[in-house]
Amino acid sequence: MTIETISQNRSHDGVQGVYKHTSRETGTGMTFSVYVPPHQDGAKLPVVWYLSGLTCTHANVTEKGEFRNACAELGLIFVAPDTSPRGEGVPGDPANAYDFGLGAGFYVDATEAPFARHYRMWSYVTKELPELIAEHFPADPKRQSILGHSMGGHGALTIALSHPDRYRAASAFSPIVAPSEVPWGIKALLGTDRKAWRQHDTVALIEAGARFSDLLVDYGDVDPFLTEQLRPELLERACAQAEIPLTLRCQPGYDHSYYFISTFMNDHLRWHAARLRA
Amino acid sequence: MTIETISQNRSHDGVQGVYKHTSRETGTGMTFSVYVPPHQDGAKLPVVWYLSGLTCTHANVTEKGEFRNACAELGLIFVAPDTSPRGEGVPGDPANAYDFGLGAGFYVDATEAPFARHYRMWSYVTKELPELIAEHFPADPKRQSILGHSMGGHGALTIALSHPDRYRAASAFSPIVAPSEVPWGIKALLGTDRKAWRQHDTVALIEAGARFSDLLVDYGDVDPFLTEQLRPELLERACAQAEIPLTLRCQPGYDHSYYFISTFMNDHLRWHAARLRA
Repeated sequence: MTIETISQNRSHDGVQGVYKHTSRETGTGMTFSVYVPPHQDGAKLPVVWYLSGLTCTHANVTEKGEFRNACAELGLIFVAPDTSPRGEGVPGDPANAYDFGLGAGFYVDATEAPFARHYRMWSYVTKELPELIAEHFPADPKRQSILGHSMGGHGALTIALSHPDRYRAASAFSPIVAPSEVPWGIKALLGTDRKAWRQHDTVALIEAGARFSDLLVDYGDVDPFLTEQLRPELLERACAQAEIPLTLRCQPGYDHSYYFISTFMNDHLRWHAARLRA
Repeated sequence: MTIETISQNRSHDGVQGVYKHTSRETGTGMTFSVYVPPHQDGAKLPVVWYLSGLTCTHANVTEKGEFRNACAELGLIFVAPDTSPRGEGVPGDPANAYDFGLGAGFYVDATEAPFARHYRMWSYVTKELPELIAEHFPADPKRQSILGHSMGGHGALTIALSHPDRYRAASAFSPIVAPSEVPWGIKALLGTDRKAWRQHDTVALIEAGARFSDLLVDYGDVDPFLTEQLRPELLERACAQAEIPLTLRCQPGYDHSYYFISTFMNDHLRWHAARLRA
């Protein structure tokens, strides 16, 4: 598998790159960013996956996430995929809806026409892109972790709960924890088999027996999506019943933006690094 | 003078705001951003001014500058003005040239038609906006410092050298140090009295006797503008002859982007804080 380098910039003593490749899963060109921290020749480094939220591309966290300083210090590769397939023939014009189609892949493999052909973000993020990263970057596939924001928090938690042996840490900013029960999720997953939804719903996965070592979740108490779309109390209840250790932090005065994410990014990366070292 | 709040977001325990007001100097609406770090009620805080480069608005550093963590820790207000007047009737369409007109105010007061009416960035940044900041934010006008990038590095250095008693520290990323002698500067200042240029040329100001306590300048050795537009060696020579202590650092592998700026922002803010405390 080949990749095209879009840009590489030295930053915090490492290299922030943006790359593009033709994805077998989505059948489109896919752009992603990778930060490689300073390291010794031949070293293999742990990989932190960051999944972005609705309307985002790889660029939002790459520009606004303030992750490079901590990744450089902690020796972490940081990978940010796009949030959906894009390009000619991909249905879901964002001019029609910001929360459906382009920029809103929801980290699932679509099962119905016209979306099933290209919208394969679950397989893309869990299978194809990890292979590509292992091939082209100094990554240690045995040490991976995952985090995300909002829709990407949903992606990170569902992927971690479905692969507890692959990811050594998982955390989220303002995640959608129960998409089956909130408007964003119901809209995105509409038309698919309702039973299949449960495999892409963090709370439902936990209720069905999925487990993870421990989770860190931050949200802001003035997040405008908190009570209707995010509903952290459902995650809290599910984790308590399943005895999954959950560090759930309500951050006073914070909202849903990258001003919030960048404030606590350092905390999350330290949480990940501690578990990736173990 | 009244200001309109465009947005306020909690970040790193302080508040990142974006504001707009009608400027008496430029005769236009002007947008700027201010970060106010956490502080005790009634406290007056030092103010760091950041001047941006060609094509930028307040938003570039606000989103990509990675300054809030250090400002929160060091107790610094961080102000980012726009780089030119904008709006109906302001000449200088950026579609014609990225380096002339909108986004390219060069921190001077234009003296010739059709620019003289609106392009008054020197007076805006040194007079009007400081009054506004003092009126609306918990700022201590006796403790101010200034830094900038590229065209904004030019602005920061010329403003500091012209007001050595007002600014306690000055630094720059990749500054244009001798606009009278390089294409960007010659184009921007074209048409004006050549003698007047010297008041807006860092190297010429120093040669004419302007002094500052000490200066910090970083540039990247793969900056594509280094040898033609920036010419740090001219600043080095002028400072040596004038016995101005200059910390001039060539950062290997770094370019002209915010990936470079954000890497060394923390260093610069610590340099400023040490001098603002003194």
